[in-house]
Order: sequence, then C-alpha cells, then structure tokens
Amino acid sequence: MKKQTKVIELLTATPVLTEVTVKGWVRTFRNNQFIALNDGSTINNIQCVVDFENTPEETLKRITTGAAVSLTGTLAESKGAGQKVEVQVSKIEILGDSDAEKYPMQPKKHSLEFLRENAHLRVRTNAFGAIMRVRSTLSFAVHQYFQERGFFYVNTPIITGSDAEGAGEMFKVTALPFDNTPRTEEGKINYKEDFFGKETNLTVSGQLEAETYAMALGQVYTFGPTFRAENSNTSRHLAEFWMIEPEVAFNELADNMDLAEDFIKYVIKYTVDKHEDDLKFLEQRLLDEEKNKPQAERSEMSLLEKLNFVLENNFKRVTYTEAIDILRNSKPNKNKKFQYLIEEWGADLQSEHERFLVEKHFKCPVILYDYPAKIKAFYMRLNDNTEPGKETVRAMDILFPGIGEIVGGSQREERHDVLVEKMKALGIDEEELWWYLDTRRFGTAVHSGFGLGFERLVLFVTGMTNIRDVIPFPRTPQNAEF
Amino acid sequence: MKKQTKVIELLTATPVLTEVTVKGWVRTFRNNQFIALNDGSTINNIQCVVDFENTPEETLKRITTGAAVSLTGTLAESKGAGQKVEVQVSKIEILGDSDAEKYPMQPKKHSLEFLRENAHLRVRTNAFGAIMRVRSTLSFAVHQYFQERGFFYVNTPIITGSDAEGAGEMFKVTALPFDNTPRTEEGKINYKEDFFGKETNLTVSGQLEAETYAMALGQVYTFGPTFRAENSNTSRHLAEFWMIEPEVAFNELADNMDLAEDFIKYVIKYTVDKHEDDLKFLEQRLLDEEKNKPQAERSEMSLLEKLNFVLENNFKRVTYTEAIDILRNSKPNKNKKFQYLIEEWGADLQSEHERFLVEKHFKCPVILYDYPAKIKAFYMRLNDNTEPGKETVRAMDILFPGIGEIVGGSQREERHDVLVEKMKALGIDEEELWWYLDTRRFGTAVHSGFGLGFERLVLFVTGMTNIRDVIPFPRTPQNAEF
Repeated sequence: MKKQTKVIELLTATPVLTEVTVKGWVRTFRNNQFIALNDGSTINNIQCVVDFENTPEETLKRITTGAAVSLTGTLAESKGAGQKVEVQVSKIEILGDSDAEKYPMQPKKHSLEFLRENAHLRVRTNAFGAIMRVRSTLSFAVHQYFQERGFFYVNTPIITGSDAEGAGEMFKVTALPFDNTPRTEEGKINYKEDFFGKETNLTVSGQLEAETYAMALGQVYTFGPTFRAENSNTSRHLAEFWMIEPEVAFNELADNMDLAEDFIKYVIKYTVDKHEDDLKFLEQRLLDEEKNKPQAERSEMSLLEKLNFVLENNFKRVTYTEAIDILRNSKPNKNKKFQYLIEEWGADLQSEHERFLVEKHFKCPVILYDYPAKIKAFYMRLNDNTEPGKETVRAMDILFPGIGEIVGGSQREERHDVLVEKMKALGIDEEELWWYLDTRRFGTAVHSGFGLGFERLVLFVTGMTNIRDVIPFPRTPQNAEF
Repeated sequence: MKKQTKVIELLTATPVLTEVTVKGWVRTFRNNQFIALNDGSTINNIQCVVDFENTPEETLKRITTGAAVSLTGTLAESKGAGQKVEVQVSKIEILGDSDAEKYPMQPKKHSLEFLRENAHLRVRTNAFGAIMRVRSTLSFAVHQYFQERGFFYVNTPIITGSDAEGAGEMFKVTALPFDNTPRTEEGKINYKEDFFGKETNLTVSGQLEAETYAMALGQVYTFGPTFRAENSNTSRHLAEFWMIEPEVAFNELADNMDLAEDFIKYVIKYTVDKHEDDLKFLEQRLLDEEKNKPQAERSEMSLLEKLNFVLENNFKRVTYTEAIDILRNSKPNKNKKFQYLIEEWGADLQSEHERFLVEKHFKCPVILYDYPAKIKAFYMRLNDNTEPGKETVRAMDILFPGIGEIVGGSQREERHDVLVEKMKALGIDEEELWWYLDTRRFGTAVHSGFGLGFERLVLFVTGMTNIRDVIPFPRTPQNAEF
C-alpha cells in the first residue's frame, strides 16, 4: 500500500473500496462526522466521514480547523451531494493540533491586509492556495515555452558592479560596516576594502548580460529576481520581483512583438488548461469582491472570459505617433480629465493614458512601438530616416487591461558608433560598459528582447488587484517581514 | 521561405537542395573557401562553401573569426569528410565585422583564467557554449522533475529581515548612506529609516519560508539565488550561487533520501540524453587537461562513464557513526596523513574525510545520515532514544566524487517544544522566528527537505573543476565584473 495518496488523485479515482491513507489539514469538521480535508494538491477538499460513535470524544475534539491528520479508510462512492467520492474513515491519527481559539486562519472571510500580515499562513486559504499553484504553473510554462523553442536559460548576476542601465534606484550590497567604514585618503568610502573590491548593487535587469549570451548562443532568456529601491507604495510595485527577459540574435522589432505575443498566449493557455478549478474559484472571488463596487468600476468580463479574450484576439499594434493622435483627440484630453494633458508629440505616456488606450479605446491588449528616442533607454535601436527632432527608437511596450505595462522591450542598437554617441550624450561611462560595447565591436548583429514583469502576469491571470497578493513574501517600503 | 534556419536543424536535415539562409558567427575560414559557422544552437558548426572566384576580395577579407554573417545558399550533401551536409553559398552578407587583430577569442587554446576575465565572450568558445547549454538543460530538468510530480515552485524572498538560519555570513542590503547615516538617540544605526524599516540581508537559504509553504501545498521547491559573504577563495565556493530546495510534508528522512537520489539521477539522465555532443566534447576536454597530470591524479573514469556510473548505482547510505568507524580505522588516519585526525565520535567531517569515504572507500556517491546534533542546524529532527551525550539528528548529506557535499538536508524538527528548547540553547531569537514557530503551533507534521547547490551539480555533469567556470558571471571575493 502507498504511504499516502494525494487528494487530487483520490478525487478522480474510481471508488473501488480499496483502503487508502490520506494526510492533510482539516478545513472544516461538520456534525462531528464530516471532515473536509485539504493537502494542497488541489483546491478541492476530500470529504472524510468519521464513525463518530466509535471514535473517542478526545480524538473528535482535536479535529479542528488547521489540524494535521492522517486518515485511513475506504474510498467509496459518496452518498452526499457535492462530491463523487469520500473516504469512510477507519483510523484517525492526529499529527498536529490546531488550537481553534488561536489559529488565525479560521474558515471565514479575512481581509487581504490581514492575510498579508500572515503571509506564512495565507497560503492555507483557498484563494492563496489557488494563486500560488497558478503562479507555479505559469513559471513552468515560461521555461517550457522557451526550452521547446531552443532558447537557453541564463542566470545573469544578481549582485552587479555596473549600474549603468539606469532602470531605477538600486539597493546597495555591502559587507562594509557603517561604523569605522574604511576611507580613502580623500575621505571617501574605500570600496576597495568591500567584499567585491568595488561598489555593488542589486540588479535592476539582466538584459545587458543576456545580450552578451544571445550573441553566442543565439536565443536566451533569463528568469530571476530583480530589484528597485523606489519608494512606490502602490498596488503595482514591489521592491523585489521576478522578471523574464528573452533576448534573440537576428530578431527585429516585429519578430520581438511576435515572440512576446505568442509567449504570453502560450503561458496563459497552458495555465488555463491546467487550473480550471483554481481559476473558477478566483473568478468567483473577483465577482464577489466587485459586488461592492459601483457598476462602472466592475469588470466587463469575468476572469476566464478575459483570459480567453486575450488568447483569441490579436494584440493591437499601434505606433506611439498614432497613440498620441488618438489621445490628443480623446474626450478626457479635450475635457481636461487627464491629470497630464497630451499636448504635443514627445510627451511621456502616463498610466492614465495607457489605461485609456487599452481599456476605453482599443479594449484589448495593445503593443505601442516606435517611441521618441528621448523618453527611452540608451540601448534602443534608433530608427532610420526620421525627421530631425522627431527621432524614434525601435521600442515596444505591451499594455494590458487592468495591469498597464506588462512588457517593455526593443530592438537593440547594434551599431557601435551610434551606441557610443548615445552613451556620451547621456553621460554613461563607456569604460564601465566595455564588455557590453565588445558585443558591438566583435560580430555585432541585429538583436531584440524584452522584459516581462512576472508578478504583473500573475496578477492578470489570477484577477487579483494588489501585486502583494501574488508573490509569497512581498518586499515593499517598510516591509521585509518573514 | 524561413527568415533563417538554425544550424542544429540544418545538420539533421536531408539535403534536398532547397535554398536556406543561416545566420551566425564565423569560427574559422579555411582556404578562402570553407566557413565553419556556429549559431549557438549546437556545438557543431555547419560548413558553408564560398564560391571564392565569384566573391569580391573585399568580402572575403571580412570573413574573420567572430564576424557575424548571413549566408544564403543550397543545402547539399557534403563532398568533404567530417560532415554530411554543407551549404553551397550563393549570397554572403557581413552583419558585423570582427577585427582579427583585436578579437580576444581566437581559434586557439585560451587559459580558463583568461576566459574568466572575458566572461562576456567565453560563451563563444566550444567549451563554454557546451557548459552553458548543459546548465540550461539541467535547470529545465529540475523544474520538469518537480512539476511532473505535483510539486509547486515557490519564490522565497531574496532580501530577508531574518538572519536566524545561520548558514553563513550575510551581505547587507541597504539604501542608507555611509555618510550621515541616520542614528538613534543611543547613537546606533537607525534602521527604521532604511528602506524596509529594519536591517536586511541577502538570503542564505529559502528553507524556512519554503517550510511554511510545504505545510499548506504539501510538496514545494525553490530554485533561486542564494548568497554567502564568506571570504573563501576556493574552486568550490561562490558568493552568489543558485540553490534548489524541495520541502515535502509527511516525508521522513528515508523518503527524503529517496527523493534526492531519484531527483539527481533524473536530471543527469535527462541532460545526458539531450547533450551527447556537448558532453562528448567536455569529456575530451577533461582527458586533454588531465594528460598533463600525474597518473594518480587522473580520473579513473571518463566523464560519460562517471555519469552513467551514478545513474546505474545506488547511492551508498551510511550513518555518521559507521563513517567515523571507517575513518578512525582508515590508513590515512592511522598514518596521520589526514590534516584533522579522527579521534572520537562527534568530530565534524572535513573535506578530506568526505573525499576519502567517497573516492577511496566506497567509490560511489554516499549519503551520510544521523549526524551528531551538536554539529548540525537547530531545525533538524532530534532522533528518539539516543544515548545521552550521543544525541543525533535526522540529517543527511550527499557526497559526490570530486565535488564533495552536493546536497545537505534533513527531516525537520516538527515538535514545537523540542524546537523552542533547541533555539533557546543556541540563543536563536524566538520572536524573530514567530512565523516559523507558527508552523509547529498549528497543524504541525513530519516534513523533510534538502538543499542542492546547483553549480556543484553543473560541475559534476560538465567535468569542470572550478565553480567559476559553470556560472555565466561568477561573484567571488574581489570580483563583481560585468
């Protein structure tokens, strides 16, 4: 006999009256008779029926919400409604008690804020169990998508000595003490005495390193943690989050868009196919949550409708210039409802503009591309033949309803002279990026890539609205508990 | 027509004289006629034959090692020895030049040290291309193994406020300045003003957080970067490395050993099956390297023999107590050849002892278990019924030939009272680990897990001997370049 059988297996097994052992945690115990047992393998519980007349009172009392138990019995067809099979328990072993008075995860509705404060226990709830199973499968789908297509996974460094990318504020990594910090003769901090012999930070992106690998292995991707020391206390920002960054030699911007769209659809489809029960639960959760909102703020589609909509429709591809025209002539711009009014070409798009385009105008995921060079990073490929003063780069951002920017990418500037000129203009140290420039010195080629913020994808797929609820232990300003 | 075809596809295609385009980097150019082209998709190059009589001298000159080219031509049966197919080139486009005088990766043997200094280019060599492809596939095998078995991937935090695990020295993560650092009234650093409102470090292990997830989802694993601020300038240590940490509810120590052994065999087999050409190259590389060594220091088996040996043989399971007996009576102990002589039970095993057991005595991977409680971590399950003074814990280490410790794991102490007592004895702050103790307060159960240092596995599979050569951009004392 197997030491134990998983709930997910039992629920789909034919009840042939064999003896089984199931181990898990009590979700509820009704009428001194019906244990709803969960072991994390699925959102569904298995009903275990206790022969209460022949079970010591002492044992029955210990079957409380949260208790760990091992139950042995016969898998049989269920007489009750709501489940096909049940375990008719012949042996109960209490593995670990859970004091009903003290256990924080009672079978009732807890606020998301309370659950965040109990991030070590919230995964024992239906909602967070579902979210974290979905997150896990999305991660695997990412790897499978790339590996099946001949991409190689690259672990770019987390601690980095180069801070030239300029994607955001960085955390310092150091082994130097704050007291009696070693100093140079000029009185500056002497980083030569630090662990790495130089100033180091937590990475904001693995892109530049990934590019060096793409120029050798052809197609690569990263999937690792990245960091921002920005004091953004919003529902869309984390100080520590996971990012996926593919980089492909010989890909132009259009190939990059094709890759991103195909990739996103693949990982969503893969996950929808595997997590019907989890997603149905999350769909209902969202419906319940939105009941308290005014009609206008509720989602037009249910969660699964929204996911299927993304799978079935092409992302709308729009140039920045077209988007500016649409925005300039839009009602909220004319009625001065935008906080930042769009007046002329070159303006940076704010979240309100992106949301208007995606949620009101196009009502589908949008790929914006060919942005003004001035508002984008130094490594993006300058378009040929643009008007002076209206230079654009081969950048693309993918905007999702409810989420905003989920992907940022570009064709990279492959021309050594153009790249150096751009770096000079922006005051980026050529010497520090000698290795990056080497890729343009030796065998340079057109190449493109993008970054996808993994938690934003998990938000979209789970229908959650706060990014702190889709990563196990969120790191945000003033919070590094656990 | 496809925009381009990968070399790996061309090499296995039937030469039906269709037109193909291949893009990649020139490895060598012989007799003004034969380009060996590589695109990273495989270690093998495709031979591309140039019609030099009808190609401008100017173009031929630019076909240098490292140059990026796009070649269009007919895929035909090769007349030469050494390859089945070749591309008879009709169109050459030079995408990016590579100045033969300056390009560091010339087609000759470079020292590993030189290649480390050029970590951004070394992946363009046969050896490092092979290593990094193998590394990528090993990573995927890790995910596939666990996902196929119903484990969930958990991203435990990288920045952590808890430093209680005590696995090693930690790097500080901070946004505070070294100058005018905020102070409390008592003159101490005021971490309340730091980004997270507390002192934070880079994680040394995700185990404790993973345990909280195992007690809800049943079977989980982490696979992420971990850090040690230890000044170990050895061929086996990195300051930043990737670790895999599965954690399983209801697993006892023997289950944990079964899981670890099955897991390691699976990922090695998966990789051997996919990377025959890369591994044959690395096998030859190792043979060449060892030619310069005295016979006694050479490997007894070739790389693939060694990998197959691991796949085909059971790991030898030995208690610490048995190992001490073997060591005490061993020749090097009696002849005082060990640096640290084994005199009595309770001694910590050094690398020399582990190597003796694995490489000389058992000549196969060894699982050592049931270690003295005193030399192991606080969270390990105390064995019942041991002699006073000879308490042991349900720990296990897996030792590999040539690598040493590759896995460290244990059954975890699930009893709240025993755990608290152990923490008190070791001076570990209960309040800081309130959340960890909660898992023993509410529904505790037997559970086990282990940590596997991913780079040590890559070392073993690739036959490399310095851990800096199996991670793209190694971080070690005084080195955080790139």
